[in-house]
Amino acid sequence: MHIRLINPNTTLAMTELVERSAARVVPADVRIDAVNPSMGPASIESHYEEALAVPGLLEQIALGNASGVDGFAIACFGDPGLDAARELSNGPVLGIAEAAFHAAAMVGRRFSVMTTLSRTRGRAQELIERYGFAGDCAGVHACDIPVLELESLGEDGIYGIAKACREAVERDDSDAVVLGCAGMADFCPQISQVVGVPVIDGVVAATGMLQGLIRMGVSTSRRGEYAAPPAKAMAGLLAPFEIR
Amino acid sequence: MHIRLINPNTTLAMTELVERSAARVVPADVRIDAVNPSMGPASIESHYEEALAVPGLLEQIALGNASGVDGFAIACFGDPGLDAARELSNGPVLGIAEAAFHAAAMVGRRFSVMTTLSRTRGRAQELIERYGFAGDCAGVHACDIPVLELESLGEDGIYGIAKACREAVERDDSDAVVLGCAGMADFCPQISQVVGVPVIDGVVAATGMLQGLIRMGVSTSRRGEYAAPPAKAMAGLLAPFEIR
Amino acid sequence: MHIRLINPNTTLAMTELVERSAARVVPADVRIDAVNPSMGPASIESHYEEALAVPGLLEQIALGNASGVDGFAIACFGDPGLDAARELSNGPVLGIAEAAFHAAAMVGRRFSVMTTLSRTRGRAQELIERYGFAGDCAGVHACDIPVLELESLGEDGIYGIAKACREAVERDDSDAVVLGCAGMADFCPQISQVVGVPVIDGVVAATGMLQGLIRMGVSTSRRGEYAAPPAKAMAGLLAPFEIR
Amino acid sequence: MHIRLINPNTTLAMTELVERSAARVVPADVRIDAVNPSMGPASIESHYEEALAVPGLLEQIALGNASGVDGFAIACFGDPGLDAARELSNGPVLGIAEAAFHAAAMVGRRFSVMTTLSRTRGRAQELIERYGFAGDCAGVHACDIPVLELESLGEDGIYGIAKACREAVERDDSDAVVLGCAGMADFCPQISQVVGVPVIDGVVAATGMLQGLIRMGVSTSRRGEYAAPPAKAMAGLLAPFEIR
Amino acid sequence: MHIRLINPNTTLAMTELVERSAARVVPADVRIDAVNPSMGPASIESHYEEALAVPGLLEQIALGNASGVDGFAIACFGDPGLDAARELSNGPVLGIAEAAFHAAAMVGRRFSVMTTLSRTRGRAQELIERYGFAGDCAGVHACDIPVLELESLGEDGIYGIAKACREAVERDDSDAVVLGCAGMADFCPQISQVVGVPVIDGVVAATGMLQGLIRMGVSTSRRGEYAAPPAKAMAGLLAPFEIR
Amino acid sequence: MHIRLINPNTTLAMTELVERSAARVVPADVRIDAVNPSMGPASIESHYEEALAVPGLLEQIALGNASGVDGFAIACFGDPGLDAARELSNGPVLGIAEAAFHAAAMVGRRFSVMTTLSRTRGRAQELIERYGFAGDCAGVHACDIPVLELESLGEDGIYGIAKACREAVERDDSDAVVLGCAGMADFCPQISQVVGVPVIDGVVAATGMLQGLIRMGVSTSRRGEYAAPPAKAMAGLLAPFEIR
Repeated sequence: MHIRLINPNTTLAMTELVERSAARVVPADVRIDAVNPSMGPASIESHYEEALAVPGLLEQIALGNASGVDGFAIACFGDPGLDAARELSNGPVLGIAEAAFHAAAMVGRRFSVMTTLSRTRGRAQELIERYGFAGDCAGVHACDIPVLELESLGEDGIYGIAKACREAVERDDSDAVVLGCAGMADFCPQISQVVGVPVIDGVVAATGMLQGLIRMGVSTSRRGEYAAPPAKAMAGLLAPFEIR
Repeated sequence: MHIRLINPNTTLAMTELVERSAARVVPADVRIDAVNPSMGPASIESHYEEALAVPGLLEQIALGNASGVDGFAIACFGDPGLDAARELSNGPVLGIAEAAFHAAAMVGRRFSVMTTLSRTRGRAQELIERYGFAGDCAGVHACDIPVLELESLGEDGIYGIAKACREAVERDDSDAVVLGCAGMADFCPQISQVVGVPVIDGVVAATGMLQGLIRMGVSTSRRGEYAAPPAKAMAGLLAPFEIR
Repeated sequence: MHIRLINPNTTLAMTELVERSAARVVPADVRIDAVNPSMGPASIESHYEEALAVPGLLEQIALGNASGVDGFAIACFGDPGLDAARELSNGPVLGIAEAAFHAAAMVGRRFSVMTTLSRTRGRAQELIERYGFAGDCAGVHACDIPVLELESLGEDGIYGIAKACREAVERDDSDAVVLGCAGMADFCPQISQVVGVPVIDGVVAATGMLQGLIRMGVSTSRRGEYAAPPAKAMAGLLAPFEIR
Repeated sequence: MHIRLINPNTTLAMTELVERSAARVVPADVRIDAVNPSMGPASIESHYEEALAVPGLLEQIALGNASGVDGFAIACFGDPGLDAARELSNGPVLGIAEAAFHAAAMVGRRFSVMTTLSRTRGRAQELIERYGFAGDCAGVHACDIPVLELESLGEDGIYGIAKACREAVERDDSDAVVLGCAGMADFCPQISQVVGVPVIDGVVAATGMLQGLIRMGVSTSRRGEYAAPPAKAMAGLLAPFEIR
Repeated sequence: MHIRLINPNTTLAMTELVERSAARVVPADVRIDAVNPSMGPASIESHYEEALAVPGLLEQIALGNASGVDGFAIACFGDPGLDAARELSNGPVLGIAEAAFHAAAMVGRRFSVMTTLSRTRGRAQELIERYGFAGDCAGVHACDIPVLELESLGEDGIYGIAKACREAVERDDSDAVVLGCAGMADFCPQISQVVGVPVIDGVVAATGMLQGLIRMGVSTSRRGEYAAPPAKAMAGLLAPFEIR
Repeated sequence: MHIRLINPNTTLAMTELVERSAARVVPADVRIDAVNPSMGPASIESHYEEALAVPGLLEQIALGNASGVDGFAIACFGDPGLDAARELSNGPVLGIAEAAFHAAAMVGRRFSVMTTLSRTRGRAQELIERYGFAGDCAGVHACDIPVLELESLGEDGIYGIAKACREAVERDDSDAVVLGCAGMADFCPQISQVVGVPVIDGVVAATGMLQGLIRMGVSTSRRGEYAAPPAKAMAGLLAPFEIR
């Protein structure tokens, strides 16, 4: 079984982090790797950047299909391009926000979410409602650390996020915390120790759930909405994305 | 006041249709025009195509900002890129699905929607829920005519859509019909005559509501989520979209 | 095009304020006026008063119909008698709460509401749910100033409301403010300057949206629920309202 | 204990029917009577008529207060003026739609509603949502018999309604039926025999539940929204309703 | 009419308290008694204990059926075994949480809940959603007093709960309080005096509403889901529960 | 890693079927087995039977804890005793309905459910709402085959279920089917071939997702609601369940 994680921004260090995190939760018969697109934003902290990350994501789905990848995870907490990726991919596709919410719903009644910048909370809230977790999510919070600074955060910085998580759990009276950025995947054990509740990172959650779907032999339904996209002329700069 | 409609696909005939339709509902002090991107799909009938229409849409928002446009409508029923466009635009932005749902909610208790291909109903349903119209929408239906065939449909074809609308209203026991494609903007009067209830086209609905917002002097809030996108490196094919 | 605003209480100064506010947002081809009933309460701050404002409102709809009015706005934030008015009116009818919520939903993800007396918040909350804006509204607040004192408020009083709005936006983490009384229509620019987010007054919102509906040529659906009320005996004091 | 039912239309025969029905479900220590207003519509089948029934209803609440009535039921399925009546009444007030929905929710998972004219279904649906029964109600149906014809319906007519109820239960796969008009209160046993599920009439449901509330010693909360309406000038035809 | 309250834990003092409380709200023609099971937990403060209270509850329903009981109330705020009890009972069955929520919804727009231990709030929240009261409940709070200590609480302890209720009403801006434990049934008058809003105890609420249902002649629907449980082999320790 | 499936009824053949099904979807490092209780009903088709299956389920959780089991699945589509099991178990616990809904939500927009007897649909609907899948589930259907007849169904019988699934997908316009009984776990491939959409069995779904949770190192939160049940006296027949 071959699972590929796609970091939809173009920052290689984050791609490597994502691969490292996922590799910890797979048994011997699973091959895991992570890639990032050749185009698009260095990090995703606005709707504008999220929209412009999607073409590169689709580029990577097409390449992964050609390489016989069995399933994909989109390693950005906004789950950019998920519906389009599902149409295009041969195997199942999960977003890390989606996977994290599903996992968090299995370990308690309500969870809190800790994202990076405040402005990204709206998108997280929207996904929570879209996926049906409005009754499970007790609050969406931000630590206001930019995505690209997570990498070089150091012990104190991580402890700061952990404290913010603990306060969120107290204020929300919740049972678990979801980390709202692929760049936080490494911090799970440290934060969990401080907060004393399950801490869910979407990268490993998606990796685990994809294995489940692939072993079950199910993938995205091809009936109707998620059938392969039709052949269609594609003009200008985006001509390379034309499907013939 | 200058309102611009952006047809996010690259088919000029549809851009012209959209401009013609909108021009009918503006008073003398409003300048109206329609444009389409230099890149992207010829029509939008899948999530894949919708995702790839967004860069071209954002290109047109940036150009419109530079030309002093006061407000934009996105003339595709999937409201592609609406959140990103709101971040980028100087003035208010409405999607035609959004505007049509708002208008339909004002003329009765419940409305039916008639889209083009069946596979697009999922996106319509998602927008209905996202915008809070789940209690207002009585059903989403498809006439299964591809977008680019709408233009050359002829009297019989339009009558066929009208009959489908009438059946939808009966089955859903609804008070109004929303036409689910910018390419149907021309058909309102004919369909309305057959169905006997208000028939809402999003192109004219958005044009009317944008005027209201602009005269009120309100635009997208800049507090938090919809602040202008930050400066960020943008790699590869999409480098032209970099914000400095 | 002739749009009429009906102030459903009997206080003339408020009727004049409403007319003045609306007049600022109409182009040259729109005639605008405001009226109030011959009967009913001096202001509306309870369910009892709201109920007793409705006969006078319906009196004014009937008179407006006879004068060829093209559309009506009900200039009280409880939207009293809206459904009955829609049955009776020849043209479209909007409540100012309804119109304000629609407009606020177009300029951000979530809005706060600032009403007059605390006891009116229940009605505001009910309308928010009735119209489908529960996911858009982040909080309903009161400044606890009686309706009839708004007129003589002075700079300090207006600044007090503005500060309360700013605190509401911070506490609710919202993108916009809806002013919850027709008597606040004048305060928009001052409050907006203090709060730094879009401030929506329902009087101008309804005036703008009614123009859109009338230019589109749509009015309340006559299919079923909103057909004209049937002929029916009407006894006693209310005999003048009998429909023959 | 003195419970009064208010038939908010001016048709005496219906008032008598309501009193007769309620009298069957009270123990020896409860005094029951029914009244109707001196003003307003002969029956309530539109929003217009419902609005114009409210002043007469409030007249009767005030009279009942003066007579020491302990609790009121509003015997019309649209629950007209319920919030205003709660402000005004010394004791608890229930609408018959409200009471019927509560009772139906206690005897199964989902119920069907059978109203009179089709156009009244919108109001029933609105009340279902307002009171929180959207998940309990499986369908709202109409038998299309005008309210004032119910009285003289005869065996065949009642059997016709019963058959419509049975079909509704089958189609909705529901556990109970709510009768959507005070004028149907007499039909419960006959309809129940045909349908084979609990059939709920709101007149007896409200009478039963009011006794419960009164024996518990609870009435409408006076904290905030439902405090007594304030003193306020009331002009013109409605001057008799002024509170001093 | 014979109404029986079943205290589903095995603590006799609580059974007696429940009987005493209910006896105060029944007229002369109603016989009331309370019982508890021969098996199960001494009090119910966890999901584990709730699950293990259900066999004893069902034992008592079967015994009550054999004694000709007309209706049952389950006197524990988690409403344990309610659906199973409805299948088994000849007459209607109400849970005290269910009954309290229904009553509280009739006396204001929103209510607060005060339970015993914090860990029981999740179950209360679940019931609120299950029964459709999510829009009516403004907050679920805990006073963190174990169930079996309520009995010996003394004046100061009761006043402590009353103060917690008052703070909850202020914080939630609610109209009424629901007491979240049968063991608090006695405290209603004292708490009500402190808080100044209606205070609802489920034991008396259920007693009152059961009378209403029984006088109406309605019981649990036997169509489908709530038909009597089928004959089925029952093994081991639970063989006494086999239905033949 | 040791995963144990608990069939909460006492029919050994079904326990063996469940173990066989789960064994197909685990890699070499996972030990899988299935057990059933010593007490309770032979199959679960009513609320009464479900309630009486829970003590036996809890007996097996306690035994599994003692054997070092890492996680449990409850192999009955009503997810009986899930909350109590979570309190008691050392490792994570999933219900097969819960797991199946989560998996189905990942492969399309909406799914249909096919249960056994009609009377079990109410419980399925309740779980769908409890878990937040109301927006994902397009319909709950029954094939009206008793649980214990599934085992000896033969090719024709399985084909009959498959046809019912296909009709459900057409009628619901859904993307996937969830099989609503552990006894159907074997039928996935055959039904999938007939229906042409993903067919989800909860036994394998739960097995897959449990692996994910265990590899992530997360289990049920111990903060508050799901802390271990407290020590408490347990009387009579159920004394063996006392926690000391």
